[in-house]
Amino acid sequence: MNDQWDKIIIGIDPGTNVMGYGLLGIKGKTPSMIVMGVLRLNKMDDHYMRLHRIFERVTGLIEQYLPDEMAIEAPFFGKNVQSMLKLGRAQGVAIAAALGRQVPITEYEPRKIKMAITGNGAASKEQVAAMLQRILKLQPEQMPDLLDATDALAAALCHHYETGKPFAGHGVKSWKTFIAQHPDRVK
Amino acid sequence: MNDQWDKIIIGIDPGTNVMGYGLLGIKGKTPSMIVMGVLRLNKMDDHYMRLHRIFERVTGLIEQYLPDEMAIEAPFFGKNVQSMLKLGRAQGVAIAAALGRQVPITEYEPRKIKMAITGNGAASKEQVAAMLQRILKLQPEQMPDLLDATDALAAALCHHYETGKPFAGHGVKSWKTFIAQHPDRVK
Repeated sequence: MNDQWDKIIIGIDPGTNVMGYGLLGIKGKTPSMIVMGVLRLNKMDDHYMRLHRIFERVTGLIEQYLPDEMAIEAPFFGKNVQSMLKLGRAQGVAIAAALGRQVPITEYEPRKIKMAITGNGAASKEQVAAMLQRILKLQPEQMPDLLDATDALAAALCHHYETGKPFAGHGVKSWKTFIAQHPDRVK
Repeated sequence: MNDQWDKIIIGIDPGTNVMGYGLLGIKGKTPSMIVMGVLRLNKMDDHYMRLHRIFERVTGLIEQYLPDEMAIEAPFFGKNVQSMLKLGRAQGVAIAAALGRQVPITEYEPRKIKMAITGNGAASKEQVAAMLQRILKLQPEQMPDLLDATDALAAALCHHYETGKPFAGHGVKSWKTFIAQHPDRVK
């Protein structure tokens, strides 16, 4: 929190090849983009180096922008156990960076974010980016090359919408909710 | 590193219900247990609370004992994607605690640890515990109720054996090695 904004939300889209991030400032009810970008995890980096770079970048963003809350895009389901373990680790270090700085975390399924931004849970990344551009009045030159950045910003905006709802839950219970809603997908 | 020991290794067995830890002090070629224990993750805690407690405990152990290296027991293969994502997150926050304190990490498959301690990659946890008791000359009252503690200490001892070998690799390349050795288990 600072003088310019009532609230700052950091959105993170953690991946093992590219990590997207987006900072959203809220003034009154109006959200504005502060910054968005990606961390490209070089193919040359080993697995620990990648985790280290994610941890350092998220810690750095938190120290620089002092966000009040974190929203994280977190798929609960993937193709295979190998990729899920790697993804879990990438999520884990990003989460640890927030935990270490006392920033509350809420996670959102990709489908939920797409629904919140575009009204369609199956929207493409391009559709999400286009809608973000409209909502946040972004200039074409502000739009990123990699849509991991807009995905992360979309997570932050989704969190703003969710927490702005009257009587909305502010808890971090999405895992539990997911399990409850998708018992068939939990073996 | 401190005056009493040439090297201190922290072993971690991260889980989502119980996390085991063990600290091993090396003097010359002789390993000794400094402490071992478990963090019981209460069923009442939500997922983030558990991750937070893992992060805090590992950070606390690192600050208290100043280990030079971390060894982590890391299964690369599990039953389903849900459990692997959760496990990955638990590993991720433990890894982040070490990364944040510049403690180098090496991970070992459970099978590798069992082999190093007992000579049998399929040994039971009880067999690992019994062998640890002999090697480290532990009194019966020093043995823990939960074998997650001995598993963690075994990871540290395995790391001591591995890094003590002449010309042993000290890198953190076990993921890559695993992939290379088990191409069939990577889809």
